[in-house]
Amino acid sequence: MSTLNLLGFAAGACTTAAFIPQVWQVWSTRSAKDISLGMYLVFVMGVLLWLVYGVFTKELPLIIANAITLALAGAVLGMKLYFERK
Amino acid sequence: MSTLNLLGFAAGACTTAAFIPQVWQVWSTRSAKDISLGMYLVFVMGVLLWLVYGVFTKELPLIIANAITLALAGAVLGMKLYFERK
Repeated sequence: MSTLNLLGFAAGACTTAAFIPQVWQVWSTRSAKDISLGMYLVFVMGVLLWLVYGVFTKELPLIIANAITLALAGAVLGMKLYFERK
Repeated sequence: MSTLNLLGFAAGACTTAAFIPQVWQVWSTRSAKDISLGMYLVFVMGVLLWLVYGVFTKELPLIIANAITLALAGAVLGMKLYFERK
């Protein structure tokens, strides 16, 4: 694998794995007050579009990274909506 | 521009612009307690790596999107560190 490919994989691993501590923190504290609903609505939509883009261009790294990010960011969004329901 | 290009631009616009409401919310509430420090440390590192990747591959959309995301996510990280300083 080229150094450039490794750089891309490292970048993708970071921007995807970053959401793991956020999911854990919201889950364990049951609090998502400071997390922007607008951010997660737009972000989840964007990751979904990246996933569709990856499917059309048949780029497996895009598909895998965005599928995992969609699950993690979607979990944050879902927990925010659930913990703050009236 | 192809439909696929448009899809990619829409995806990038969403995942970048998503951070604007988060920056605004932390700035206006002066609170970032529920935001994971670990997430933003790893995410900012990942966006920086994507930016370097874009520079090496000379992909302008990657460079522009990640430079803006770096500024926005970096602002969230900086405000969290500043507002929660001892």
